Amino acid sequence: MKKFINKLDDVLIESLSGFAQAHADLVNLSLNPHFLSRKKPAANKVALISGGGSGHEPLHAGYIGYGMLDAACPGHVFTSPTPDQMLTAAEHIASDKGVLFIVKNYAGDVMNFEMAAEMLSVENATVYTSDDCAVVNSTYTEGRRGVAGTVIVEKCVGSLAETGASLADCKALGEKVNVRTSSMGVALTSCTVPAAGRPTFAIGDNEIEMGVGIHGEPGRHRVKMQEADAIVNECVKAILADWQQKQLCLKGQPEALLLVNGFGATPLMELYLIYHSAATLLKKHGIAISRSLVGNYTTALDMAGASVSLCLLDDEIKHHWDSPVHTAALRWGC
Amino acid sequence: MKKFINKLDDVLIESLSGFAQAHADLVNLSLNPHFLSRKKPAANKVALISGGGSGHEPLHAGYIGYGMLDAACPGHVFTSPTPDQMLTAAEHIASDKGVLFIVKNYAGDVMNFEMAAEMLSVENATVYTSDDCAVVNSTYTEGRRGVAGTVIVEKCVGSLAETGASLADCKALGEKVNVRTSSMGVALTSCTVPAAGRPTFAIGDNEIEMGVGIHGEPGRHRVKMQEADAIVNECVKAILADWQQKQLCLKGQPEALLLVNGFGATPLMELYLIYHSAATLLKKHGIAISRSLVGNYTTALDMAGASVSLCLLDDEIKHHWDSPVHTAALRWGC
Repeated sequence: MKKFINKLDDVLIESLSGFAQAHADLVNLSLNPHFLSRKKPAANKVALISGGGSGHEPLHAGYIGYGMLDAACPGHVFTSPTPDQMLTAAEHIASDKGVLFIVKNYAGDVMNFEMAAEMLSVENATVYTSDDCAVVNSTYTEGRRGVAGTVIVEKCVGSLAETGASLADCKALGEKVNVRTSSMGVALTSCTVPAAGRPTFAIGDNEIEMGVGIHGEPGRHRVKMQEADAIVNECVKAILADWQQKQLCLKGQPEALLLVNGFGATPLMELYLIYHSAATLLKKHGIAISRSLVGNYTTALDMAGASVSLCLLDDEIKHHWDSPVHTAALRWGC
Repeated sequence: MKKFINKLDDVLIESLSGFAQAHADLVNLSLNPHFLSRKKPAANKVALISGGGSGHEPLHAGYIGYGMLDAACPGHVFTSPTPDQMLTAAEHIASDKGVLFIVKNYAGDVMNFEMAAEMLSVENATVYTSDDCAVVNSTYTEGRRGVAGTVIVEKCVGSLAETGASLADCKALGEKVNVRTSSMGVALTSCTVPAAGRPTFAIGDNEIEMGVGIHGEPGRHRVKMQEADAIVNECVKAILADWQQKQLCLKGQPEALLLVNGFGATPLMELYLIYHSAATLLKKHGIAISRSLVGNYTTALDMAGASVSLCLLDDEIKHHWDSPVHTAALRWGC
């Protein structure tokens, strides 16, 4: 294993410290327990808190700032944060409007965020993201996994929260965006967790894992390497089948946001090629792509691979996607 | 080789098409010859054109837009663009103010941009970037290589050009930023050029290449894998020695921009750890880091590795770094 690290025990804190130093205008890092929060806490709004295992950067700390999250609680690599992190973060930033947790649906995260919610004296609610349509139930989940679509949820709810909207309205928008978003990923290689020191799973030189999870969990099946168009076709088909399953109305010309997300080790050149392939295919299916995002937004350490996420837009979601945001990883209009 | 591609011959055009579709609000893609240019051409300003071999994305197309480049000419992977690309792009976007080429110092790029400059009827000038302090002369260069510091040059000159500044003033600022910027990179793995289908160079499981170039060219030496702090220390030492060599004045408390750049396959978590290590070290050397950039800004396809760039700031450079920019890969203030 070759990684830019010092002592294994210090990886997380050194990385978080670097993040907080590089973005000192945006975030504060609190220690014991660890959480990151906005430099300029926003008053009189629902406080949005997310978190999860580290290794998915820029998720979630990279989305702290105006128009998105108020705080993020990073666990160790691929390990849930502990309830005291969420509790302390929530008590630190909560206003009278309450706290909304945005949680990717993994058993450990769900349990620990639930415990924090129970202990929290402030009014609170939780949105669970479950956009991954590859598998139902998996290594770390009951039900579907939350993956890159979480970024779209955090962006839209973040925008609504800035307007002073109620906790119930923020939760409702988060759930709406989650339902309207489906994702499917594929791995060309494994990732390597620093503390493990070896690849999470074995995969042949000519094999890929369709529907892989963002920790390297198994997906739908292991197949031979194929051309990009064939891989993208399987992802898009799975997503559109999922939309049908969810009974999303596709009358008229549906409009969508297309997110092509790199898992960490895939060149941007290939991500744009995937985008081209997916956009061409979706056009044939009568779907108009009016919003796009291409890059490494929800990663799996050093995994070579990518995911395709599609969010069915309406005027409300478009408005909140387009609104100003100022975070380390997403920034526009500010 | 596992990559998200279809036919080898189509990689570049499919990727560029995806880029142009995903950023249709920012850029137009022209074909035969290939170049990308601003959707809304800017009048009455020096036109800034860069380019070079593909594989370094987001460099250069990702920097087209307000406050940065007017056009970019992508060659095939790690191959110089041809003079007709630069010539056609320049004729397409030039105003009376002239054209400034920003060219990384590689023999092929230098030759082809020079040929375009000779054929171009519009007044023009060229800034060559050469921030890599690892080696003088190398596989593809006479003199030093231009690497990630090019992004800082393009950002600052882009800002100045928007004010209607003269060609001479834009060139002068570009050369000033280049001289004040030094970079040093390190590779943990090779990259794989799609058309070659195998790693560009062999490297042992416990070896790293210090001073590597962004095409996998040899650097200073091959050493055993070390802790991040030791690697960063060698980079920072080389950079500060280079500053001394260039007789940059370091009196008082020098202020610098620290860019930690990933080569394509290095997790953000490790890049922030490198940032933390470099910032800690630079502080000990009495250097204040007042501007930061961490991420994949000048890549080498799927190479695991990173570079550290340091730009000695003054009020002029700070002003132009901070000014609004709206491109696919860098955006703030707009």
